[in-house]
Amino acid sequence: MTPAPRTPRISRQAARLVAGSPAIAEAHFRAEALPYHPRLRPDGWLNLGTAENRLVQDLHTGPPPRPLTARDTRYAPLYGTPELRGHLARHLAGLAGGPVDPEDLVVVAGATAALDVAATALCDPGEAIVVPTPCYGAFDTDLGGRSGARLLPAPPDPEDGHALCVRSVDRTLAEARRDGVAVRAVALASPGNPTGQVHSAAELRELAEVAARHGVDVVADEIYAGSVFGPRPFTSLRTVAAEPARVHTVWGFAKDFGLPGFKAGVLHTTDPRIRAAARALAYFAPVSTHTQTHLTGLLADPARVRAFLAENRRRLGASHARAAALLDAFGIPYVPARAGCSVWADLAAWLPRPGFAGERALWREILDRTHVSILPGEAFHAPRPGWFRVCHSLDAALVEEALTRLGRLLTPKGAPHVDARHRPAAPAGPARPLV
Amino acid sequence: MTPAPRTPRISRQAARLVAGSPAIAEAHFRAEALPYHPRLRPDGWLNLGTAENRLVQDLHTGPPPRPLTARDTRYAPLYGTPELRGHLARHLAGLAGGPVDPEDLVVVAGATAALDVAATALCDPGEAIVVPTPCYGAFDTDLGGRSGARLLPAPPDPEDGHALCVRSVDRTLAEARRDGVAVRAVALASPGNPTGQVHSAAELRELAEVAARHGVDVVADEIYAGSVFGPRPFTSLRTVAAEPARVHTVWGFAKDFGLPGFKAGVLHTTDPRIRAAARALAYFAPVSTHTQTHLTGLLADPARVRAFLAENRRRLGASHARAAALLDAFGIPYVPARAGCSVWADLAAWLPRPGFAGERALWREILDRTHVSILPGEAFHAPRPGWFRVCHSLDAALVEEALTRLGRLLTPKGAPHVDARHRPAAPAGPARPLV
Repeated sequence: MTPAPRTPRISRQAARLVAGSPAIAEAHFRAEALPYHPRLRPDGWLNLGTAENRLVQDLHTGPPPRPLTARDTRYAPLYGTPELRGHLARHLAGLAGGPVDPEDLVVVAGATAALDVAATALCDPGEAIVVPTPCYGAFDTDLGGRSGARLLPAPPDPEDGHALCVRSVDRTLAEARRDGVAVRAVALASPGNPTGQVHSAAELRELAEVAARHGVDVVADEIYAGSVFGPRPFTSLRTVAAEPARVHTVWGFAKDFGLPGFKAGVLHTTDPRIRAAARALAYFAPVSTHTQTHLTGLLADPARVRAFLAENRRRLGASHARAAALLDAFGIPYVPARAGCSVWADLAAWLPRPGFAGERALWREILDRTHVSILPGEAFHAPRPGWFRVCHSLDAALVEEALTRLGRLLTPKGAPHVDARHRPAAPAGPARPLV
Repeated sequence: MTPAPRTPRISRQAARLVAGSPAIAEAHFRAEALPYHPRLRPDGWLNLGTAENRLVQDLHTGPPPRPLTARDTRYAPLYGTPELRGHLARHLAGLAGGPVDPEDLVVVAGATAALDVAATALCDPGEAIVVPTPCYGAFDTDLGGRSGARLLPAPPDPEDGHALCVRSVDRTLAEARRDGVAVRAVALASPGNPTGQVHSAAELRELAEVAARHGVDVVADEIYAGSVFGPRPFTSLRTVAAEPARVHTVWGFAKDFGLPGFKAGVLHTTDPRIRAAARALAYFAPVSTHTQTHLTGLLADPARVRAFLAENRRRLGASHARAAALLDAFGIPYVPARAGCSVWADLAAWLPRPGFAGERALWREILDRTHVSILPGEAFHAPRPGWFRVCHSLDAALVEEALTRLGRLLTPKGAPHVDARHRPAAPAGPARPLV
C-alpha cells in the first residue's frame, strides 16, 4: 500500500479560531505576568485592559464553605442544577423587574459560553449578526468563533454621540437584506461596553421593534445589569420588547459579583426551540456542581445579595469618579460612564499618524513606554480611531499609578505631537468630558 | 417597508444537535427522578444505565475546604491554572508511565468537552472519524455534535470477540479513502467502554501504526486509566505510538475520582498546532477557578492519591465481582470486565423480535416492567443486537435489587420466549462468561 498523503493536522474551523484569538485575553495575561509593585517592581505592568471587577473580592473571602456532600459530586442537569436556577430566577427577576421561570435559564461556563450558545442556536456558518458599534471586543469570538456567524457592524451616526443608534441598526439590517445576507440576530451589550452607557427604555424598545420588523432575534448581554452607578436605572430588553420570546439575555457572575474566574453564566430565553438548543449546547460547557453549590449559597440570602450589590455599585461609582478626576487633571477627554468597570477615553488628539494604524502605534507606544495595558478602540469596532477603553475597577493606587504614567506620557508633549492635518476626524480634545 | 419574512428561529447545526441528544443523558435523569428506596419507594427506579462511579463518594466528604482567596475569584488561563496543570502532569505521568509537560495539557469542562475540542481541532464538518465498535455511546455527540464530524463505525471481526480489532479499523480507513471520504482521526476508549476490556500494548501499538500508515491522528479517551482492576495493566496509547504527536489523549476526574459532577477533563497533546487550537477552544468551556483550586488540592498529596486510587480499584473490582455473581446466578451471559464501571451483558437470547427493533422492545420491556435502566447496545454502535451495558458502580444493595428484578423478568420465562428462528445471530446463551 502506498503511504497515505499527510492530512492537514488542524481543521479550518480551528485555524480560523486560532487566528482570531481575542486581543483582550492575550493582553490580559501579558500584563499580569510582571505586575507593578511600588517597592519590588516599580516599573512593572499595570493592567487597565481587562474589565475584571476587583473591587469586591474582599467580600468573598468569608468563612470556609461547607464540606462536600455526595450530591455535590454527582451528575446534575448539565444546564444548571434546579437549586441554582431557582435562585438565579429570583435574582434576575429582581435585576430586570419581571418574572423569570427557572426552566427558561440555561447555566453554562461563563457569559462567553452563553453568547456562544445563543449565537450557535440562532446561526449557521456564514449567517450574520448585526452589532451596534463600538461593541464588546470579544463579541467576534464569543458570537462567531464557534457558531461560524459573522458580525455586521452598525456604526452610530455622528449626531448620536455615544447613545445606542437604532437608526444605524435599522439601516444595516435593511442593507443586509438588500444584499442577500441572512441576518439572524442583533446583539448588543446593555449596559454598554466599552462606553459604560445605560440604554434608555425608549432606545431599547425601539431596538426591539426594529429587530422584530426585520424578523430577527436580539441577543442582549446584560452582564453589567447590577453594576449601574449612574442615575438612570437598568432596563432589561426583555421587559420592553413586544415579543419577549425573540429576546435572549445573558448574565453572569463575573462583573456584579466580581467572580470572573468562576466562569458561570446564564442564558435566559423563553423560546422553547432556542431553549432546547441551548440545553443541548450546554452539554459541552457545563459549570461544575462544586461551583454551582457555592453560587447557590451565595444567592440564597436575598438581603445579603442586596447589600453586596449596593456596596459593589458604591465602589464602582467611587472608582469611576477617581479615574475621571485623574483623566480631567491630565486633560484627557472621555465619556463619563454610568455602569461597568471602564471609561471610554478619547486619545485621538495624540495619534502619531491618522487612522487605525496611528491608533495601533499609540497603543504600542503606551505599552512600551508606560507598561500600562489599555485596549484600543479598534478591538471594539470603534467607528473612529483614537478611542481607548480604560478599566478602573481595581485597587485605587494602581489606577492612580497607571493613569499618572499615561498622563505624563501624553501631557509633557503639551499639545498633540503630530501635525493637525493627520487628525481630520479627531475632536478638539477639550479637557472636559465629551458627553 | 414590507415585513421581513420570518427567519427560522433555530439554526440547522443546533437542530441537528437537539435531534441527536445522547440517549445516555436522557435515560439518566429519567431514572434519577423517582429513585428506588426499600421502604419509601420499593417500586422506584434503579439506574444501572449511567457509568457514574458512586463507590468513592464517601472518600471526598472530608473537612471543609479552605476559604476563598482573591486569587480564586480572578481570571486564570482558560485552559487551566498552572498549578492544576502541574499536578495533572505528574498524575497523568504516573498513570501512563511517561513524562508529561504541563504545557501540553488543556483543561476543559469535562472529558466531553475535551473530546469535542480534539474533534473540532482535527475535523471540519462532514469529515470523518473512524471508531472501533462497540464504542462509548456519547462519542456521536461528543466527537460530532459541535465539530460536524461524522463517525465511521469499524465493527470487529467475529473471531476477535471483544478485543480491539485493528484489522477492521485498517479496512474501514482503506474503504473510506477509496470512497473519497476525508478521515481525520481514529477515536477509541482505552480501557474500553462499554466492554470494560484493557487493550494490550501490542494491540494499541498496532492501532497507532495503522493510523499513521493512513495519515490520521488518534484520539484516545483514557478516562478509565486509573480504574483498572483486572490483571493486565493500563497502557497509554501515547507511550507505544511511533509518532506520539499524532496521539491526543483525554482524561477526567469523573471515573477514577468519582467526581462526575465536577465536569473537569483534560486533553493531552504534544502537537503544537493542535495544542494552540485546543487552547483557543478551551475559551468556550473553561473550568471555574473555584473547582480548579479544589482539584489542585486533591492532587497535591501523591501518597493520598495513590491510596485513593488503590481503594477505588479495590471497590470497583469487588462491585464487579458481585454483579457478575448475580448475572451468573440468573444465567445471564456477559463479558467479564477488567476496568471501569460496567459489564457488557448479552441478552440476545431474550429478544422478542430479531434485530435492533427487538433490542429496543426488550429495553422498553425492562424499563416498564422492572424500572431498571440499562442501556441497549445500539446506543454503543454494537455490531449485533442484544447486548446491554449494565453499570454496577453504585451501592451494592441497589445493584442486587436491580439485577434481581432483571433476572426475575428474564428467567421465569425459562428459555428465551421467542422462536429460535428470530435470533439467527444470537449466541447459544450459556450461563458462563463469554470471554
